[in-house]
Amino acid sequence: MSRLWDKGLPLDRQVLEYTAGEDHALDDRLVAYDVTASIGHAVGLHAAGLLSTADLETLRSALTLAGESHARGEWHVTLEQEDGQTALEQELTRRVGEVGGRIHLGRSRNDQVLTALRLYLKDAVSSLSTRTRQVADALDNVARRHADIVLPGYTHMQQAMPSSVALWAGGFAAEFRDDADGLAATLRRIDKNPLGSAAGYGTPGLPIDRDVSTHHLGFASSHHPVTAVQLSRGKAEAQVLFEISLLMIDAGRLAQDLLLFYTQEFAFVSLPSEFTTGSSIMPQKRNPDVFELIRGRTASANACLDEALGLIAKLPSGYQRDLQLLKVPLFRGIDLALQTLGILPTALDGVQFRPDNLRLDPAIHAAEEANRLVVSDGIPFREAYRRVASKLFPK
Amino acid sequence: MSRLWDKGLPLDRQVLEYTAGEDHALDDRLVAYDVTASIGHAVGLHAAGLLSTADLETLRSALTLAGESHARGEWHVTLEQEDGQTALEQELTRRVGEVGGRIHLGRSRNDQVLTALRLYLKDAVSSLSTRTRQVADALDNVARRHADIVLPGYTHMQQAMPSSVALWAGGFAAEFRDDADGLAATLRRIDKNPLGSAAGYGTPGLPIDRDVSTHHLGFASSHHPVTAVQLSRGKAEAQVLFEISLLMIDAGRLAQDLLLFYTQEFAFVSLPSEFTTGSSIMPQKRNPDVFELIRGRTASANACLDEALGLIAKLPSGYQRDLQLLKVPLFRGIDLALQTLGILPTALDGVQFRPDNLRLDPAIHAAEEANRLVVSDGIPFREAYRRVASKLFPK
Amino acid sequence: MSRLWDKGLPLDRQVLEYTAGEDHALDDRLVAYDVTASIGHAVGLHAAGLLSTADLETLRSALTLAGESHARGEWHVTLEQEDGQTALEQELTRRVGEVGGRIHLGRSRNDQVLTALRLYLKDAVSSLSTRTRQVADALDNVARRHADIVLPGYTHMQQAMPSSVALWAGGFAAEFRDDADGLAATLRRIDKNPLGSAAGYGTPGLPIDRDVSTHHLGFASSHHPVTAVQLSRGKAEAQVLFEISLLMIDAGRLAQDLLLFYTQEFAFVSLPSEFTTGSSIMPQKRNPDVFELIRGRTASANACLDEALGLIAKLPSGYQRDLQLLKVPLFRGIDLALQTLGILPTALDGVQFRPDNLRLDPAIHAAEEANRLVVSDGIPFREAYRRVASKLFPK
Amino acid sequence: MSRLWDKGLPLDRQVLEYTAGEDHALDDRLVAYDVTASIGHAVGLHAAGLLSTADLETLRSALTLAGESHARGEWHVTLEQEDGQTALEQELTRRVGEVGGRIHLGRSRNDQVLTALRLYLKDAVSSLSTRTRQVADALDNVARRHADIVLPGYTHMQQAMPSSVALWAGGFAAEFRDDADGLAATLRRIDKNPLGSAAGYGTPGLPIDRDVSTHHLGFASSHHPVTAVQLSRGKAEAQVLFEISLLMIDAGRLAQDLLLFYTQEFAFVSLPSEFTTGSSIMPQKRNPDVFELIRGRTASANACLDEALGLIAKLPSGYQRDLQLLKVPLFRGIDLALQTLGILPTALDGVQFRPDNLRLDPAIHAAEEANRLVVSDGIPFREAYRRVASKLFPK
Repeated sequence: MSRLWDKGLPLDRQVLEYTAGEDHALDDRLVAYDVTASIGHAVGLHAAGLLSTADLETLRSALTLAGESHARGEWHVTLEQEDGQTALEQELTRRVGEVGGRIHLGRSRNDQVLTALRLYLKDAVSSLSTRTRQVADALDNVARRHADIVLPGYTHMQQAMPSSVALWAGGFAAEFRDDADGLAATLRRIDKNPLGSAAGYGTPGLPIDRDVSTHHLGFASSHHPVTAVQLSRGKAEAQVLFEISLLMIDAGRLAQDLLLFYTQEFAFVSLPSEFTTGSSIMPQKRNPDVFELIRGRTASANACLDEALGLIAKLPSGYQRDLQLLKVPLFRGIDLALQTLGILPTALDGVQFRPDNLRLDPAIHAAEEANRLVVSDGIPFREAYRRVASKLFPK
Repeated sequence: MSRLWDKGLPLDRQVLEYTAGEDHALDDRLVAYDVTASIGHAVGLHAAGLLSTADLETLRSALTLAGESHARGEWHVTLEQEDGQTALEQELTRRVGEVGGRIHLGRSRNDQVLTALRLYLKDAVSSLSTRTRQVADALDNVARRHADIVLPGYTHMQQAMPSSVALWAGGFAAEFRDDADGLAATLRRIDKNPLGSAAGYGTPGLPIDRDVSTHHLGFASSHHPVTAVQLSRGKAEAQVLFEISLLMIDAGRLAQDLLLFYTQEFAFVSLPSEFTTGSSIMPQKRNPDVFELIRGRTASANACLDEALGLIAKLPSGYQRDLQLLKVPLFRGIDLALQTLGILPTALDGVQFRPDNLRLDPAIHAAEEANRLVVSDGIPFREAYRRVASKLFPK
Repeated sequence: MSRLWDKGLPLDRQVLEYTAGEDHALDDRLVAYDVTASIGHAVGLHAAGLLSTADLETLRSALTLAGESHARGEWHVTLEQEDGQTALEQELTRRVGEVGGRIHLGRSRNDQVLTALRLYLKDAVSSLSTRTRQVADALDNVARRHADIVLPGYTHMQQAMPSSVALWAGGFAAEFRDDADGLAATLRRIDKNPLGSAAGYGTPGLPIDRDVSTHHLGFASSHHPVTAVQLSRGKAEAQVLFEISLLMIDAGRLAQDLLLFYTQEFAFVSLPSEFTTGSSIMPQKRNPDVFELIRGRTASANACLDEALGLIAKLPSGYQRDLQLLKVPLFRGIDLALQTLGILPTALDGVQFRPDNLRLDPAIHAAEEANRLVVSDGIPFREAYRRVASKLFPK
Repeated sequence: MSRLWDKGLPLDRQVLEYTAGEDHALDDRLVAYDVTASIGHAVGLHAAGLLSTADLETLRSALTLAGESHARGEWHVTLEQEDGQTALEQELTRRVGEVGGRIHLGRSRNDQVLTALRLYLKDAVSSLSTRTRQVADALDNVARRHADIVLPGYTHMQQAMPSSVALWAGGFAAEFRDDADGLAATLRRIDKNPLGSAAGYGTPGLPIDRDVSTHHLGFASSHHPVTAVQLSRGKAEAQVLFEISLLMIDAGRLAQDLLLFYTQEFAFVSLPSEFTTGSSIMPQKRNPDVFELIRGRTASANACLDEALGLIAKLPSGYQRDLQLLKVPLFRGIDLALQTLGILPTALDGVQFRPDNLRLDPAIHAAEEANRLVVSDGIPFREAYRRVASKLFPK
């Protein structure tokens, strides 16, 4: 087991790995947003008379170039740099020297990190919401493709009432659209500008108008008061992960239905061969791995939510380093949702219902028959129900 | 341990306890809402020509009386009745005989239960949201009462920058208002009328216009399609519990701060004696039990959320009996939140800050000093920072 | 919603409900164990010369009578008493006056509560373990009753290899026995005597030998050092709840298999009518509610574990009132497990496999055929596999 | 956001990423164990007369070389290979051609993967347990280094009774040793040989004695019956993660105490400078990041446990692809525990208590004084308590 971690590292390296080991890789996805946020902050400093127009343009240009260079893969956040903020600062200083230092006025790591994160989240949530609607659209297509097929409707996993492929797919489509709306609604907590809260206690001595960067960056509002900013950490993240959990539960339940329909005993559907895999010892089998993994990732998404809530619970107010760990479940949850959403529409396009195998229990029309008796004979439902039952199951 | 459960019960009683043991007590709080929902359903039947005007009035009057009688404590849902729906049905039949049976047309237990639950949730969420704002108001009062008191601002539990009681309380007030908004936003998922979805597959053979009961009951919309209704179960419930989790985390963090401030070593606050308790063997102590229990209930609220999400995960579509178990964490989470919100404003009213004990680390003004140097001398922040540091910690 | 909690209670009543509202009812099950623990403590005081022989006998007799009276239902722990310890103390004082006070020497609520709890847990774990083995025995009976029935063996919910009812039931029986062993193994953490640790810092000034009460009460050891006792709180509780979670997962998976086997499409089993229920609008249906509720309670058990772990996480050392809340998920988890275990053996006795409906996919023997080819022809498995596959699925 | 996942990948690549995207990297740590397990399987085949002595030696030698080559970093499991089993198979075939195929007889991916995983877990658990004891030893050193220092003992975060650094550190040391024992006890579920269960239904047609590989590989027993093997998946994993959760809770509580002791208000300890970091805008600060991250990782460890339990909940019996996802939380939980355990002993070595700052509340001796009064004057404790209280707090 010595391979696992005990590499005989010197102490400072061990501490570095423990404190920054995950961060630096995670921060790569935030660099572009940090560039945007930093320009927004520079604009705010300039408006407050704390940065000359020349310096602003120098910084804006250098930040833009640094971001483009990063997007081309020319540099990455390294472990030694610990985090994306340091990496960007070094890139900036390398390009413009001393002037690079002027951007740190009136800003702390705490508000810098959070601003980049929220800009990222706005994009992520929009992408999640859009893709979720694409899954709903794919379900609409399933309904259209099999418009005439009657399906048993189940309760308690028992045939209960007549349903249809259209109703089955339509129910899921509606819930995915509900998830898309839920994801979009997380913007309420995300869309607040943290810049100017600095370490959580503002920027005493500096005449900064926080609304300038808010307006420049397109945030809906500045986050007030400054002490609320760090207190709020984890809440927007958790809400995104909560909505991802609901989304993945819906996806997992859809998968569970398809896994059931794909058994030899139901045999209601065939699955596209690209989405099934062979067996190492059973030549006859085609396994529905993709749908099992969608079902399984329900649990992974839920664990991401648990982790985020667990991280912030019981913390004293003010920034705590624990909050840095939020990125791990947040990015993991977003990625697994995006991957699942990416694969679902194509998978659904390949699902074929097999009408020949759909056999409805004759008793499934009992409730409808009782309803009709009520309308035709004007008797109470309970009485109609008794008549139908006695016909179905004569003593 | 035979006392625990093995009471030598006959089988049918064991099954009854296992299936309905929790439900019947929980359902008591839904009876009033079931009365309202049932009248709404009767109105819908009447509009569809499936119920005569006379029968509608008979049902409306009997339902109203049954609900008032229940509110006066004259009857309760019993274990033998299994659930509130059966109990109300029996009350109704007892009062109006045969006509009582006419209300079951076009309705299943599944949509009946859910309609009552959603009407209840609309009230519960409104109450939670209102009380959460009252906590924020109490924090505003704390800020006003101690308007002039400077407090250390902490990061990493270390004195970092100057703050104030007003900023400390204001940060929490803002987050409680955010929680109140979050609770109110759960209405989006709650405010959809399930009536007419019946067992999840509609009411074939009956010409019911679902929008009639939707309008009568004040729902924002009818929940479409019918198959989405049972698929959606647990999602609104989970969202309420999620927002309660965030709320309780904020309450727990407030409690954690106060527990810290109440230590002999900080001694920043005194707590009202009604909210502290004595020790059985240590005569000198006054313990802050209420705040510890608020902190602890963070974990209980989170467990309610976990339970709700766990219940719906991986279920095949269509109604499953598992869904009945959702009421347990839902009601528990709502109750613990309401109790905590009920006690917090008074508790906060009694918190007194002790300015004599507030000692700020002299170095706490370092950042502000560096800021001022930047403004006055036009030097970059990093340079100002170095000058301040070398003054504070001379080599 | 005013009915919910806002009963206009006076402040002290609100505080009492918030701090002791759940405790007093929960403590009723601990009274018998507190009696035993208190006698053990008195024996320890007597051995240390801190209690006369006459007083010991007075206390022992009065405690025993108080316990018997409680068992007969003659008194209960009331909300005003707050907890079982106070209730027992009042019973004791009522019976023997001043002498009752002598038992509080060298003991705090903290070690008193915990001793009673651990004695209770020893019983509870033994009961859980025994009943879990009874479920395994019932599964052995299922295997025996259907000894000759071949069943498809599934992987990925697809027919994979031939199996049998005996193998199916035997697999679950083995895992329930594993759960029983896991439950019994929790004794390692439970079986340590907390008495003498008092509030967590021992009994300075008193010559008490902790091993006396340890021996008298049948604990495996005294819990050392005194500071470990409160630090350990929640760990044994969480381990019991963890093992209950595994047990309920196994029970839930068994239920899931039976729910699958009970669908009209599989129709592999019939279920005893006592364990199914009718439908309110579908006369033809018999629903497997009991098995759905077993599956659902998987989530409830897991939430109990989450709550226990969440309660102790991040607490500073030393007793904290949050720990009192551990009883809620602990008792809830134990009760739901005992109820499930109570109902499962009878339910399993009534499960009948329906051999006429068991149809094995002809290809299910492919792996076995390939194996035999290897043995008979001495060719590698991959080659045998190819030959079988080409025979099954000729191009 | 198009960067996130939508790389315009062709469908087969998307499916590959979705099904094997995490596996291949995770499997690298299992290669060495798969080599061992595969040799054990070959030994079993040879004993059954299904593999010639020459072939056994060829396979043993090639497997050993492949393993050594992997350990030197000469090859890795690639995404295209999907998993470590395929990678090792290709390495083997590359080295010995056709003979490599002979090892697949009587074995499925399912038992192959699980055997490697359990061999790995035996090592991991042993390493975790050993390192946990090293933390306890470091705490013993803290106690020894500060043998004479009296510390306040807290309950409810209030000074309660006199304690000492030795008692404080000793309590944690005892609990870490308890965690080490708990980790070691997970072997009960791990130490069972899955080989021969194949896909979960044994190896019909092959005369394999499972105990041969059991003995060769040093497992305590063969896992019976074959259907129990896949049913058991996740249970040992979850138990390891449960014990890691307890361990991390203990570590987090230790960190929480030190974070409290390190505040300027307590100032009970100084922390080694290697374990603190500077602030970007507050020159005076040294932040205790390492201890905050230990506290935070409590939540991460708990999420790993939740994920594992969530993955197996409600699955039908038989192998399901969801089970593959267990490796993610399992490896993550083990790694974060090993990293925390790796850093804690050195961190504890650097903790210095600052006796000059330790001030005990004079009332802290009240309980001891009351005890002494009981012994000296023979009065009941309650009476002694009243006397001490009236002296401390005269009216």
